[in-house]
Amino acid sequence: MRVVFLGTSGGIPTPRRSLPSLCMVRDGEMMLFDCGEGTQMRLMRKAMGFARLSKIFITHIHGDHMAGLPGLIMTLNLLGHETPMTIWGPPEIGPFIKSLERDIKLRCHFPLQVKIIKPGVFHSEDDYHMEAVPLDHSAPCWGLALQEKPRPGRFHIERATELGVPAGPLFGQLQNGYSVTLEDGRVVSPADVLGPTRAGRRFVYITDTLYQPGLVPFCRDADLLVHEGMFTQDMEHEARERKHCTAAQAATLARDAAVKRLVLTHISARYADASVLTEEARAVFPESTVAHDLMEVDVPLSD
Amino acid sequence: MRVVFLGTSGGIPTPRRSLPSLCMVRDGEMMLFDCGEGTQMRLMRKAMGFARLSKIFITHIHGDHMAGLPGLIMTLNLLGHETPMTIWGPPEIGPFIKSLERDIKLRCHFPLQVKIIKPGVFHSEDDYHMEAVPLDHSAPCWGLALQEKPRPGRFHIERATELGVPAGPLFGQLQNGYSVTLEDGRVVSPADVLGPTRAGRRFVYITDTLYQPGLVPFCRDADLLVHEGMFTQDMEHEARERKHCTAAQAATLARDAAVKRLVLTHISARYADASVLTEEARAVFPESTVAHDLMEVDVPLSD
Repeated sequence: MRVVFLGTSGGIPTPRRSLPSLCMVRDGEMMLFDCGEGTQMRLMRKAMGFARLSKIFITHIHGDHMAGLPGLIMTLNLLGHETPMTIWGPPEIGPFIKSLERDIKLRCHFPLQVKIIKPGVFHSEDDYHMEAVPLDHSAPCWGLALQEKPRPGRFHIERATELGVPAGPLFGQLQNGYSVTLEDGRVVSPADVLGPTRAGRRFVYITDTLYQPGLVPFCRDADLLVHEGMFTQDMEHEARERKHCTAAQAATLARDAAVKRLVLTHISARYADASVLTEEARAVFPESTVAHDLMEVDVPLSD
Repeated sequence: MRVVFLGTSGGIPTPRRSLPSLCMVRDGEMMLFDCGEGTQMRLMRKAMGFARLSKIFITHIHGDHMAGLPGLIMTLNLLGHETPMTIWGPPEIGPFIKSLERDIKLRCHFPLQVKIIKPGVFHSEDDYHMEAVPLDHSAPCWGLALQEKPRPGRFHIERATELGVPAGPLFGQLQNGYSVTLEDGRVVSPADVLGPTRAGRRFVYITDTLYQPGLVPFCRDADLLVHEGMFTQDMEHEARERKHCTAAQAATLARDAAVKRLVLTHISARYADASVLTEEARAVFPESTVAHDLMEVDVPLSD
């Protein structure tokens, strides 16, 4: 699981920060969280290719979070993209895409589904699901989480060997949760050789929102929390008025939810040097970083 | 009159070429010709500011030429832009802007007019007018020209002095086309002291189109012709199929129209090194250049 920050600006881009978008690469699959103007160019800068891109999640309809969709669709058309794509977002995304087709004849040449995000688990795959929680912003907006399903416990080779299981295919069967019968008739079950089930990784993406302490359960124990940290603490009043957050508020949420790591994004154009945001966040929660465009963060499997 | 190339790619951007857009700065006024995705970021990179931006001309509705409009409008809103803006384009631009308002609640906070481009002179100002000519592309598309009005002839100071006109306000009156009466009762008319009327500058912008020799009159004597030069000559068949041009075809038009200077833009992503396009164009018309992003071209007044 690898996260690539494509655009890390707030509503107004800067020469160094492009508009909001984040790319998640996981198990050969590529997904976008938000798709601000310039997303396709950022993907190209990173030479990530488009072929594996199959899911786009749009948090809310503000232009800075979705104005990159038309250009992305057009480029995928021109590149002969064939992977089916699903865009999840608020109800307005469907009509927006339809209007593009009617007004400017932009038709998708690849299979495209548009689905509405609903609170709770709104999409499931074999090994992960997606969750949404409503945020508090000037437009209806979703906080999102990718939750991996639990993984089998660690396989204890030495224990299996002690029990007389020969190295080979029987190891794989045990690891996959099946009991095996040995040549002498004894049965070894997975519980004999596997440690406790391990939690899947949790990635949480929260932008744009007023500070919401109520998000602690949603963020709890996340391996990575990406959260807006648009302002310094002295701008708290402006943050509140515009329904945004300070870096310190995001860090407070990260600390209270005991996440492993916090990365701040959606940085206001006023901070040419974002180190002040890093300092304010680390004072509350040391494992804080401010994202920059094209930054990569690996989210390792836990033990 | 200064032209800044903001984006010089074809339909697909590259890490070095952003999507089509060109900025014209003239007499304190700023205008955009096309507004592909990323236009606002290119303007920021150039630190050009937005305050003087009052006119946008959209040649056709393909996404690569206008998908930067929503983000630009949103940023102008956030920056408190107040200068009234007019967008000229094909009939679809109006519904496109209206759909943005309906679908994603993107309202302009500054005065915005949307007008339809018509063939011939479609807009006049005191000292220039705008002309349009239909191109031949896969969507209805306009070639555009900014034509300055003729300027008074050169003022011959020595001739005025010979005729006894005292240096001072009377010089200005003569330059502005008014006759003056000297102290001794003699009348000096502008024709006595001014050279022949001088042509205004002509800037022509042509993209996207099949090669059209019929555009010679429209391009005739242009001070600057910006023309698409998407392909090398060996790709002429593909150019024709997709209703685009080769660099050599654009240079042929430039030569036949006796323009002063040709700059090629809308460069296909296949040319990481565009020097082959420059060579093919210069073989036909030596005053050819291939644009790169953020390149500036001054268009000087002629004598």
